[in-house]
Formats: sequence, C-alpha cells, structure tokens
Amino acid sequence: MAGSGRLEAFSDGVFAIAITLLVLDLAVPTRDEARDGGLTTALGREWPSYFAYLVSFLTIGIIWVNHHTVFDKVRFVDRPVLFANLGLLLLVSVIPFPTRLLAEYLTAGSNAHVAAAIYSATMLMMGLAFGLLWMTITRDERLLHERVDRDQARAAVRRFGLGNAFYLAAVGLAFVSAVGALCVNAAMAIYYCFDQLGSAKPGDRLPDHPGSSPDI
Amino acid sequence: MAGSGRLEAFSDGVFAIAITLLVLDLAVPTRDEARDGGLTTALGREWPSYFAYLVSFLTIGIIWVNHHTVFDKVRFVDRPVLFANLGLLLLVSVIPFPTRLLAEYLTAGSNAHVAAAIYSATMLMMGLAFGLLWMTITRDERLLHERVDRDQARAAVRRFGLGNAFYLAAVGLAFVSAVGALCVNAAMAIYYCFDQLGSAKPGDRLPDHPGSSPDI
Amino acid sequence: MAGSGRLEAFSDGVFAIAITLLVLDLAVPTRDEARDGGLTTALGREWPSYFAYLVSFLTIGIIWVNHHTVFDKVRFVDRPVLFANLGLLLLVSVIPFPTRLLAEYLTAGSNAHVAAAIYSATMLMMGLAFGLLWMTITRDERLLHERVDRDQARAAVRRFGLGNAFYLAAVGLAFVSAVGALCVNAAMAIYYCFDQLGSAKPGDRLPDHPGSSPDI
Amino acid sequence: MAGSGRLEAFSDGVFAIAITLLVLDLAVPTRDEARDGGLTTALGREWPSYFAYLVSFLTIGIIWVNHHTVFDKVRFVDRPVLFANLGLLLLVSVIPFPTRLLAEYLTAGSNAHVAAAIYSATMLMMGLAFGLLWMTITRDERLLHERVDRDQARAAVRRFGLGNAFYLAAVGLAFVSAVGALCVNAAMAIYYCFDQLGSAKPGDRLPDHPGSSPDI
Repeated sequence: MAGSGRLEAFSDGVFAIAITLLVLDLAVPTRDEARDGGLTTALGREWPSYFAYLVSFLTIGIIWVNHHTVFDKVRFVDRPVLFANLGLLLLVSVIPFPTRLLAEYLTAGSNAHVAAAIYSATMLMMGLAFGLLWMTITRDERLLHERVDRDQARAAVRRFGLGNAFYLAAVGLAFVSAVGALCVNAAMAIYYCFDQLGSAKPGDRLPDHPGSSPDI
Repeated sequence: MAGSGRLEAFSDGVFAIAITLLVLDLAVPTRDEARDGGLTTALGREWPSYFAYLVSFLTIGIIWVNHHTVFDKVRFVDRPVLFANLGLLLLVSVIPFPTRLLAEYLTAGSNAHVAAAIYSATMLMMGLAFGLLWMTITRDERLLHERVDRDQARAAVRRFGLGNAFYLAAVGLAFVSAVGALCVNAAMAIYYCFDQLGSAKPGDRLPDHPGSSPDI
Repeated sequence: MAGSGRLEAFSDGVFAIAITLLVLDLAVPTRDEARDGGLTTALGREWPSYFAYLVSFLTIGIIWVNHHTVFDKVRFVDRPVLFANLGLLLLVSVIPFPTRLLAEYLTAGSNAHVAAAIYSATMLMMGLAFGLLWMTITRDERLLHERVDRDQARAAVRRFGLGNAFYLAAVGLAFVSAVGALCVNAAMAIYYCFDQLGSAKPGDRLPDHPGSSPDI
Repeated sequence: MAGSGRLEAFSDGVFAIAITLLVLDLAVPTRDEARDGGLTTALGREWPSYFAYLVSFLTIGIIWVNHHTVFDKVRFVDRPVLFANLGLLLLVSVIPFPTRLLAEYLTAGSNAHVAAAIYSATMLMMGLAFGLLWMTITRDERLLHERVDRDQARAAVRRFGLGNAFYLAAVGLAFVSAVGALCVNAAMAIYYCFDQLGSAKPGDRLPDHPGSSPDI
C-alpha cells in the first residue's frame, strides 16, 4: 500500500517513451527512392506513415491526459491497481508495433484490412484495459480522495463502454475500408479529448480547494 | 547519504525504457514475406517474438513492482545501495538483447537451446542482482523505516533463493526444450506477482498509518 | 485542475527521450565504406549528421530550458494547457525525423533544399506551438503565481513573434542554401539561450524569496 | 532561479535513456552467421560489443551516481548551471555512438585505433564537461547548501584534473592498442566509483542530520 507517486512516474516514463518511439518509424526515403520526382514526391508516398503517426501520437497523448485525470483522484495504490496499470502500460507500449504495421500496409491492397483490424483491435484492448484500471481503482473507496461518488464512477464506465463499442466497430470497418477504420480511431482520440471521467470543470474549484492537488 | 527519491526516479526511467524498447523487436513482415498466404500468416510465423515479448514485459513489470515495494521501506540510500541498484539495472536494461535473440532463434533448431539458455541465465542473474540489492539494503537498519524485521528479511532471502533455483532449472531445461524454458520463465513472472517481500497485505494498515508512504 | 507536477514529469520524459534518440541517427560507416581512406575519412563524409545532430540537440535543449522557465511560473494546469503542451510535445518528439532527413540529404543536390525547408518548417511550427502554450497559460491569471504581469506576457509574445519570423526566413532561405538555413537554425538556438520570457535575472531575488521555487 | 528538481528529473531521463539505448547495439547474429559453428561461436565473435557495452554502461552509471552526489549539495540552479548541465548531457547522450563505433571496429585492424581514440576522446570531453559543471555550481555559494567549503571544491577539481589526464592518456594509448585504451576507460569507471567530491562517508552523519536530504 503506497502513494501513487512512483506508479505515476513509471507510467509517465512508459507513456513518454512509447509516444516518442513512434518517430523512429517515420521512414526517410533512400536516395534511390528520391531520384525520380525528387524528395517531395518520395515523402508524399509515405503519407500512411504520417497519418498513422498522428493518430497514434494523439491516442497515447489523450490516454496520458486521462490517466493523469484518474490518478489525480487516487490517494493510495495497492497491488491490484499496480497490475491493472501494468496491463494498460502493456497496451500503450505495444502501440508502435501496429502503427508500423499500418504504415507499411495501409496502401498494400487486401493486407491493409488485416493491418487496420489489428490496429483497431489494439486500441480496443487499450480501451478495455483503461476501463479495467478505472474499475480496479474505484472498487475501494479508501484508495480515493473524497471526490468520486458511485454515480459518477458508473457513468464513466458507461461512457467507456460506448467508446469501446466504437473501437469494436472500427475493427469491423477495417475489413471494408482500412482508411475508414483509421479515421474512426482518429475521431475516437478527439472524442476522448473531452473529459470522460465526470471531473469538475476547470475553474470551478480553484477558490475552494487551492491546495487540493499537491501532485508529485 | 541521501533520500531514495532520485534513485527511484532514475530506476523508474531505466525500467520504463527497457520495457518499452522491447516493442522495437516486434518485427513487421516485409511485403514480400506477406505475399504468400497474406499478412495474417506472415504475422503468425512471428509467434516467438510475441511470446518472448510478453514474458520479458511481464518480468520487467514484476521486477519494477517489487523494486517499488522494496524502496517503499527505504529511508536513505548510500553508495553500496546505489551500486547494487546499478547492478540490477544493468541486468534489467540488457533484457531486450536475449529477448531479441530468443525471438530470432526459438524456431531455429539446435540454436534455440543456446538462445533459451542465455535468456534464462539473464533472468537468473537478474534474480541474483535483486537478492544482492535486498541484502545491501537490509544490512543497515538505519537505511530503513521501522517496518522490516530481521526474520522477514531472512524469509524474503530464502524465497528469492527458491526463485533463483527455478531460474537455474530453466537454464538446464533450455538444453532439452527451448519453449519449455521460456514457459518456466513465464511461470516465474507469475510467481513473483505475489509479494515475495513479506510486506503486509493491502488494506491491513490503511487506518493505522494513513500517511506512512509519502512517496515521491 | 491540477498542479503542474505530472505535466512537467511527462514533458521532461518526452524532451529527454527526443534529445537522446537523436544519437541513433549518427550512422557508423560500414567496414566497406571505411576501407578506402580509412575510418577517419568515412566519418568525415558524415559531417551533415553531426551538424544536424548538434543543432537539433541544442534546439531541444533550449526549448526544455524555456519550458522549465515557463512552468516555474505556473501554479495550476487545466485541460487547455495540457493540450497546448501536447501540441508542443508533438513537435519536439518529431524532430528526430527532419534531423535524419537533413543528415541524409544535406549533400544531395537539389533535394537538400527540400530537406532543409522541412527541417526549418518543423522548427517554425515548434516556435508557434511554444507561443500558443504561452498564450494558453497566461490567458487565466489563476493558473499562475503572481510573478507575471500583462506587459511582460505581451513582450514575450512579441519576442516569440520575432523568433518565428526568423524561422520563417530560414524556410525561404532553404531553397537558396540548405547549409545556410541550418546555420540560421543554429543561430536561433543560441538566440533562445537568452531568456525570452522576461523573468528576473539570476541572483536578483535570492535574498527576497529564498523558498519561492519549491519545484518537484 | 529555481530549485534543482526539474533539472534532476530531466537529467535522470537523459542518463536513463542513454544507458538503456546501449542495448540496441548488441547485435543478434543472423541465422546465416550462426550456421557455421553454431550460435555460441557467432555470439563469441561479438565480444567487442559486450566489452564496449559494459564499459559504457558502467561509465554512464558512475557519472549518474556522481551527478546525484553533486546535486545533493545544490539548492538553486540558474541559467549558467542549466547550460553547463546541458553540455554534460550532450556528451552523455552521444556515448552510444562511439560505443557502436568501437563495437564495429575494435577488431578491424588499423581502424580500431581511430575508433578507440574517438571513444576515449568522448570520455575525456565528458570528464571536462563534468568539471565545468562542478565549477559552475561552486562559483556561487548561494546556489549551495552549506556543506561545501572552498578547499573541498578545489580538491575535487584537482582530482577531476587527474582523471582527465588519464582519459587523455587513453586517447594517446588508442593509437598503440585499441583494447588497451578501452581497458583504461574501464579502469577509470572503477576509479570514479569512489566518491571524487569529498563528501562525507556514508553513515557519518545519519544521527546528526537525519532530514538533511529531502530529495525529490
């Protein structure tokens, strides 16, 4: 039983590394590839890389923001929380792999469908892992500051469920249109930009609890 | 002589990077490899990568959880502790290498035995390094909060010894069955999920020491 | 609404990783390349790598220093700040890509111009993202400690604008001289070494506010 | 003017990443290379990789320990300290490059001398950067806790000078024996294991200043 400081530090590290490693898969065209039509054309052909990079960056970034929001409510972590968090980190840190897969195969005919389905399925599993972490945290009130009530917690779970339904739809859509599935993933990242955890709006509480967030 | 904050921050960094770098070795099949039978088949052939990835991820994750548990008991660190910790980090950060080796050779006939033995030997050395760190920390009571007694410390060393005996067995088993050795390593990761340090069960102490872990 | 601790930790992680990943693109010549004229000559041919490495390292380093200076003034962060910061991190973490591009193409005839323009445009966008972050932070006084006044904030924005004008000029210059554009980027990094945020000079305040910066 | 918390966090990140990236250059032999004589022989041929890996890991680890020891004495950091620290981080984060160079060329005849000289020169520059950082920190007493006196500071500089003389000798020795130069570097890492900053011995002060190191 411990404070959440080191869990947050370790998680921040994994998030930061996973989000930054994505850049290693932005391929620089060889000089041969850049001969005909010049570097601009050669780079243009790599558009699936950039698209997949952006969606993955945004997704990891949003998950980090929401992770931050969740642990702002947490006072203590126990072993189940550590392991639920490790499960989430497994999914986060694996994201560069399906991203690379998608960058390579998005324009590769029928294999594009497989790549997009794997990509979307990874995101779905990440969504499920996040929901599981949330439920593990909210299962025991003693782990939390006073700010989360049961109704809020359940409403958040319902909204996670809705999000995951969309990720599941993206897996199906992948077999029809790989680019379409990637667009759904992009839309999901934007959807998750809005706080899904029912926390108070910024500014509401500043005068009341000026010192309520003595983080790290 | 200093608090353990920076040691933990540096260690968290190394753990986080080592665990995330593993993803770089999940190989994306080339378009040529994916031609016959499609991408799904080509990915399926890479199963040793995924298996090795999972075991290594889980192992590093568990070691991090236990590192976290150990340093929760530590109040000050001195040079011997810094160096024993550096020894552990050496083993942790080298893990992507035997993982890559195993992913490449697990299905490569007789070389699979060598790769699995090297993998298991790395885990054994990591286990020994963890035990050494534990003994370095518990050698001087002034480094600790009051929570560890001698019997607990010795019991933990005995259980480490048992764990290391299994890792040693995995090295031997590797020469009979490479996959079997990897399975033993997976089982060890699950075994270490259960707290080997004799700390109190989660929930026991919340009412008594609510502020006992003001970490980071 | 939370303290800025985790945002800083996550950002530090991304900065630290992006700045360190640059080293992966310092290519070691193959033994074949080193045969004629020896390793020294072969390494000498790689000078664009070293130059691009240095400029990128310096730029990320300076941005980190200024990020540090900005968040020293921040008391709370809200969602708009988290997202403006994520935008900056996107640009920071992508820098290894144009750096690699420039290293590969700086001596490649007409493609050098394209590579240098992309490099400079990335830096321009990073400058814009930094300005946006600054404006997002200073839009709401409650987010800040008392130390920033409106005039200071506006003066800083004006100076950012000047800096970005130079980055824009570098984009144009790239089409005339790729090396020249890289030199402008190097000069900009040195320019930004001097505090662009109107903070007090070091030493001014030590006796007055000895405990004014209880960071992390 | 700020506390040293974020500088330490960022530095820890760079140290942790540089030390962990080294593993990427431990090459897994291809299946072709492992055909004749098996994997064991093929791995054996890679001994320069392991030797260079160990020396670089140890060196970065020691520098981190000493960085930790130095900043334990620091109360505030100003811009000159931030930049002197950035200089040190530049050298630390570039280490994987000469390490890779040495791993590739240690057994490559006359080019081995060049590789070893570059490796040793990098270490020399890192030693100089560390000395510069130390002098920047100790130039202004207000930056420090009370624990450093002038004589201690000067004695430390003299000992740094001695260390750097050995690194310089390693550069020269590289042209006679590449392996010899690497051995000198290994010996230097071990030499720096012993605290070169004149801090009190562990255990001396525990009863007197139990709370003297409230780090991160």
